[in-house]
Formats: sequence, C-alpha cells, structure tokens
Amino acid sequence: MKRTILAVLLLASTAPALAQPAPAPLPAVSPQVVALRDAALHDELAYGIVEGLTTEVGQRLAGTEAEARGRDWAIAKLKSLGFANVRVEPFDMPTWTRGPEAVEILAPFPQKLVVAALGNSASTPSGGITGEVVGFDDLAGLEAAPDAAVRGKIVFVSHAMPRTQDGSGYGFFGGPRRQGPSIASKKGAIAIVIRSIGTDYHRNPHTGVQVFAAGVKPIPAGALPLPDAEQLQRILKRGKPVTMRLILVSQTGRGQSGNVIAEVPGRDPRLPPILVGGHLDSWDQGTGAIDDAAGVAIATAAAKRIMEAGRPLRTIRVVWFGAEEPGLFGGRSYQARHTEPHYAMAESDFGSGRIWRINSKLGKEREVEARTLQAALEPLGVVPGKLDAADGSDIGPMIEAGAPAVELSQDGTHYFDLHHTPDDTLDKVDLEDLRQNVAAWTAMLAVLSGGIEPQPKQPKRR
Amino acid sequence: MKRTILAVLLLASTAPALAQPAPAPLPAVSPQVVALRDAALHDELAYGIVEGLTTEVGQRLAGTEAEARGRDWAIAKLKSLGFANVRVEPFDMPTWTRGPEAVEILAPFPQKLVVAALGNSASTPSGGITGEVVGFDDLAGLEAAPDAAVRGKIVFVSHAMPRTQDGSGYGFFGGPRRQGPSIASKKGAIAIVIRSIGTDYHRNPHTGVQVFAAGVKPIPAGALPLPDAEQLQRILKRGKPVTMRLILVSQTGRGQSGNVIAEVPGRDPRLPPILVGGHLDSWDQGTGAIDDAAGVAIATAAAKRIMEAGRPLRTIRVVWFGAEEPGLFGGRSYQARHTEPHYAMAESDFGSGRIWRINSKLGKEREVEARTLQAALEPLGVVPGKLDAADGSDIGPMIEAGAPAVELSQDGTHYFDLHHTPDDTLDKVDLEDLRQNVAAWTAMLAVLSGGIEPQPKQPKRR
Repeated sequence: MKRTILAVLLLASTAPALAQPAPAPLPAVSPQVVALRDAALHDELAYGIVEGLTTEVGQRLAGTEAEARGRDWAIAKLKSLGFANVRVEPFDMPTWTRGPEAVEILAPFPQKLVVAALGNSASTPSGGITGEVVGFDDLAGLEAAPDAAVRGKIVFVSHAMPRTQDGSGYGFFGGPRRQGPSIASKKGAIAIVIRSIGTDYHRNPHTGVQVFAAGVKPIPAGALPLPDAEQLQRILKRGKPVTMRLILVSQTGRGQSGNVIAEVPGRDPRLPPILVGGHLDSWDQGTGAIDDAAGVAIATAAAKRIMEAGRPLRTIRVVWFGAEEPGLFGGRSYQARHTEPHYAMAESDFGSGRIWRINSKLGKEREVEARTLQAALEPLGVVPGKLDAADGSDIGPMIEAGAPAVELSQDGTHYFDLHHTPDDTLDKVDLEDLRQNVAAWTAMLAVLSGGIEPQPKQPKRR
Repeated sequence: MKRTILAVLLLASTAPALAQPAPAPLPAVSPQVVALRDAALHDELAYGIVEGLTTEVGQRLAGTEAEARGRDWAIAKLKSLGFANVRVEPFDMPTWTRGPEAVEILAPFPQKLVVAALGNSASTPSGGITGEVVGFDDLAGLEAAPDAAVRGKIVFVSHAMPRTQDGSGYGFFGGPRRQGPSIASKKGAIAIVIRSIGTDYHRNPHTGVQVFAAGVKPIPAGALPLPDAEQLQRILKRGKPVTMRLILVSQTGRGQSGNVIAEVPGRDPRLPPILVGGHLDSWDQGTGAIDDAAGVAIATAAAKRIMEAGRPLRTIRVVWFGAEEPGLFGGRSYQARHTEPHYAMAESDFGSGRIWRINSKLGKEREVEARTLQAALEPLGVVPGKLDAADGSDIGPMIEAGAPAVELSQDGTHYFDLHHTPDDTLDKVDLEDLRQNVAAWTAMLAVLSGGIEPQPKQPKRR
C-alpha cells in the first residue's frame, strides 16, 4: 500500500499535467436555501407519493385505463397537497399493449426461455412463429451480415453494455433495441430477439420502445433476460441448428394520455415559470417505482416545500408528463401547447439514486446563478458539473430548442438492473437516497425561485 | 477505534468466561491428501458439468421427460469420464407439472401480480377462481384464526424469514409453504398464496414442495415474490375488501425417475463404499444450476480426481439422485435397494457457495479420522464443526437410520435469493467458489478412501 502511495506522489510531483488548479470559490448561499435544503433531508412526502402511486395504481402503461387511473390519483393528490391550477392537459396517441408471450428452444436442446416484447413489436399469431435462429454478437455484426444469412430467420443480437454511473452506456449499447428490429426486418428476418438492454442477471427481461423505420415491415421483436441471452449464445456455440418458437402477441390502437400540471403561484405572475417534473406513465411489468414515480415524487415534494415556506417570486410549475415511455408524447404535447418562455426546467427521470452531479445550461449571463446552484448542492455530495449542458427526457426537445435547464444527475450505477423490468417496484427505492434527491431539488428551487417571502396574513375564515 | 480495542482488551482480561481454551491440535494430513486438495483448486470439470447439464438439458423436473434427458446426459458424461458400473436404478413416482399461472387484484386497486404454484397444488379451472383475500402475518396467525374468518376465502400468509449462512431459517420459516396449505384448507379456504420462502426482492416466486395432510382436500396453493407479497400487504392494510383472481393450472400423473450411479472401484471390493452425490432433478423454472447441478458436479469432479490419482482402498460411489425436490424419492429408493453398509455418505445440495464448516458423524471410534478430515479442510477456510452431527437431503433418512456421514456446509447466505426460482441459472455459479468446493470434497474423499495407490501397469493394447 505504502509503495503505491509513494509511486503516486512521485508521479504527481514529476507530472505537472496532473496537477489541478484550485477550483474557483463558489458564491455564498442564502440561509433560507440552506435551511430549506437541510430540512428536506427528513422528507416523508416523496416516499409517500411513490408508495401511494405504485400501491394504489400500480403499472401505468401510456394511453391505457391504468394511466388514466394514475392521472386521477395525481389530481387528487396534488389538490390535497394544496397546489394551485391543478389540471390535465390531455392528448391522443397511438397505443401498444402486451399480450401473451413465450419463447421456447425446440432443438437441439428443448427448453423454455423468458421473453418480453419490445414496444411496437408486431404481433405473432397466438400460436407463435417458428424459425431457425441466427446470432450476432452486436449490432455491427447484424449490419454486416448479408441478407441471405438472415432471410426467413429469427435474429438474435447480443451486446456488451457495461454498468456506468451516468447511464452513458445506454445510448450506444441500446442500438440492438432501437435499430435492431428495423435492420433485421430490412434483411428479411421473420423476428428478432435481443439481449436485454440491462445489467442484471435476473430472469426479468427489459422492455422498451423501438420504432420501425419508415417503410420497414414491423416484425415481432422481443428481449431476453441476460441469463437467457447467454444461454442462447451457449446453445448457438454448440454449432447445431437452433430452432425457436416465439409467441409475442400484442395489440395496437388509439388512446388518450395527458400531462398533469400543478402550480405554486409566484408573487409576480408575469415572470416565466420554473418547470419541474417527471413522468407519470410507466412500462407495464413493474409498478414504475423508479421509472418514474420517484421522479414525479421528488419534483412534487420539493415544490411543496417551497410552497410551505411562503411565496416564491416566480411560479413553480410541476408537470407529471404522460406517455414518456413510448416516445416523449407528453413532452411534445407540452411543448406544442406552451410556447411561453420558461425561466428554467428540470426533470427527474433516472431512478431514485442519489444526486451526484449538477449540470446546467442557463446561459452565460446567468453564470453566477448557475454557480450558486452548485454551491447550494455541494454539501449534499454533489459534484459541480458543466455550465453549458443539461439534459432531460420529456424536456429534452425543449432544451434543444433553447429552454434554460438544470440537470441533477442521479447515480445510475444500478439503474439498468431494474429499468423497464418487472423488478421496478417500491422495494427498490431507498428512503435516504430519495430524501437526498428532495433536498437537492428543494435547494435548486429555492435558488431559482428568486426568494421566498412569507404568506400574507389570511383573513380569518368566517 | 483505539478506544474500542482497549475496551475489548479490558473486557477480555476481566471476563474469564470469554477466554477460550486453545483448540486441541488437529492430526497431521498426508502429503497425498494435501496435493490432491490443492490441485483441485484449479478444477475445470465441475464447472463443465454444470455448464453442460444446464445448457444442453435445462430444467429437469422430477418424473418428466426432461429429467429423463438429464439421466441420458449424466450416463453419457459419467461413461466418458471413465467411471465404472455406470447405471440407472429407476423407480416410479407420482408427478405434478405446472400449467398456466396468473394472479390479479380485481379490487380495490386492480393490478396483476406474479405467482408460482407450489408443488402438489390443486389446479384451478383455466379461468381461475375469484375470492376475497384474508391476510396473516405468519403461520401462527392463520392457525389462531377462527374457521369463519377463512372459510370461502383466499388466504395470504406472510413470514419473516431472515438471511442466514447455514440455512437455519428454512425450517421454521418454511412453515407457511409446508403446513400453510393444509391448515388453510382445513379451515375452509378456497386457495392460499404465501410470501415466497426466500430472501430476494426480485419478481421471481419461489416454488417448492408441500404435501397436503391426510384427509385434507387439496386447494390451489401459490407463492408470491417478496415485492408482490409486500404489495398485497400494503393493499390489505388500506382496509378495503381485496378481491383476487387466481389461476394456478397444474396436472398430476405418474412418471418414472431414477438414480444415476457410477463408481470408482476400490482395491478391496469387500469394503463398504463411500457414497457421494447430489440430485439430478430440479424445479422447473430455472435450469437448476445451484440446485443441484452444482452438487452432482462437485461430487463427481472430486471422485474423478481420486480416480485419476490411482486406486483408492474403498470404492467411491457417485449418486446423482432423481426426484429429490418432490420429496426425496431418489434417496428413499436408494435406501430401499441398498441395505449394504456404507463407510460414509455425503451430499452436496445447498448451492455453490464456499464450504465454511465441516460436520461429521462417523462414530466415537473414528474420531481421529473425523479430526483428520477437519485438518485436511482447514487450510481452505473451513471451520472444524461437530463430530456428532451431519445432514443431507436424499441421504438424510439413511443418516437417521445410522449411516456414517460427513456434511461439508456451504455458505448459504445468498442461497435463498435463488432457491426454487427462475433465477437458478448458470450465471449464479462462481467458478472460484465451485473450485473451493471441489478441493474440499477431494480432500474429504482422499482421507476417507483409505489411501490411493498407483494403477497397476496396463497390458499393452493389442
């Protein structure tokens, strides 16, 4: 151990490139922000929202009656919490719903595996389809394959997605889910199964949306859990032809979704509002506890804390977006409807792990405010991040279009163990982690709100 | 930290009750045993058996064609490894096989849960049965309930099984599975669902056998995963009547199973053999990697190492028991057929975790041998345990009847995360842990075998 330390010190002293300048001091944070932040570490509301929504509604698949029950639940909850202007902004959308699913190796080693259809998968007949499996280690392998190797077959695509803290593996390694079905169909495959875009070894497949490219014939598309994907790889490796029967029944239609909106009115209603939120809908196999009951709960609990403290200068608008999972329908509907400027927007949609970094994109002229946000959060163990970048799911297109935004990055090290699986349930939410989130969001809102003043004395009730 | 250490030292010096006598020195271990043990830490065979059996056969439900394919696989493998007297000792048995399963809360909060039937569950009609749920925190609660509180209802029983290293929670806390269905039926329940007898929070229910008491009418009996059991508890706690639809279709019949037996012949065939083994059958949802492909693989790999080293004095008999899961059918068949004395017996059937303790029951007159076994294993991190106790699953009745036995206790801290679930798959087997098992079993066999001598020169093949 000592030798290692010595080596590091020697390296440091002889390698000036490694030496870092002392970070610039952060601005002071007002006692009001500090007090609100620290009190939020004892928050009970966020957990209560996650518990209530997941218990009393359960899964909330976009565009279905389950999501509608979720909206009813949200409206009742937000009203009971005392928010103003509680309302639904509805929109219509295409729906896709899961039916019976099964997968079985018929030869050379007969056995059942586990599968879940990907969103927008074509439906098989109820008896399924049967074909020979052709396997690829990654999407590039499928892309490079001649059509003749794929035509009439069931494609299997694996990948090597690693566990990361910031979720950065999901973009590249999500390719087999997002592009795989379209590529396989173009080459004449009769179906595709992929290694789940996940990091856990449980028999719970990861679903998720995919959209067939324009002009491509939809084919059945499913995900195998990692143990099953590796089992199939082992079977393929034996070199004998592998025959699979795949049942992926699903239905498409039209349905209604909506964004649930609630506000903490600002003292100056002419000022642009601060938008915070998450999404109400979930995939259909778990109860959507971390994706994204936690998100709406964190944003709502933080806004409620500001409301309890008094009147912020700026209006805080809480949005529980509908239909995020099938393709940001809620975010796009909000964007089309709300062309007014926003002071800032932030969305919580990466589980319930602790906030470990703050990024923001408020513009050069608001750098002091951005750095005050960093200062307000660093006592929670939050790394000051970028000042010119922020991301979010439903709010992504609005950020791209120029809306100022803050991104409180959650630790996603374990997120893809649960993401889009039956395992996304309440027991995965850690109360203390959730409270740290609420504290960070409360501090953020306290800074952005422009100062909170006491409520004017209420006239006595008659 | 220093203060804590000081306090402990002071406590030790003033509390003679805490002082332990130095343990008696263990006997010397022969260099042959040491060499065989340490070489086994590089074993490849055990993992190869687990990989092959779980990949090429998959699940091996007792009495079904899948278990028969498992026997064929075992026979071919044991012959190819060079064992002698490779054979099946078949037996007939009742079978129970799983059909479609589903569970749904209809009111007050409509949602699907996950369920698996327990072994010997009665079948529901294909459309299921519907009833009001009455919940109990433990088996005692159900036992204490008046019949009127249960009659015509679906019983739910929870429990508080903790995680333990030695599996000691499984006896008491397994009550809801073993006795719950009979008690519920006697009180007039139409069905029962229990909190899985497990320790993990994945949506994978733990099945397992239960047998209805004599004269009790079989009812549908299932297990909910822990997240679902706690969800149901939360729903019940809301105080509104809870209606459940339960589909647990299953079939009963008759089938054939068998014990697969292979031997390393001893130099003196008149001496009683050493029996080592595990069980070939598995539950039907995973691939039975830790329960119990690992067990047969460990015993077989250890026996193969003795065979490669030369000729043991005593015959080593490797048994891959059939039909352990539904009630030790293989063990009982073996016991009925093999009334000859055994020198010792040992079974590996608690996963693939490292051996942490050795217990034995070889009789007072073989204490030096028992302590030599302890000495041979302690360098592997194995605690010398009892000299008057040993256990095993299939061999349990024979130990009870007086057969000498050794128990190499595996670390079961994580066993009940996987036990009888779809998650019992190859990826859960750690190669280094498995090798430590093989080393311990090899050392045990090297001691018990009575010494291994070189093979006599083979006459040249003509």
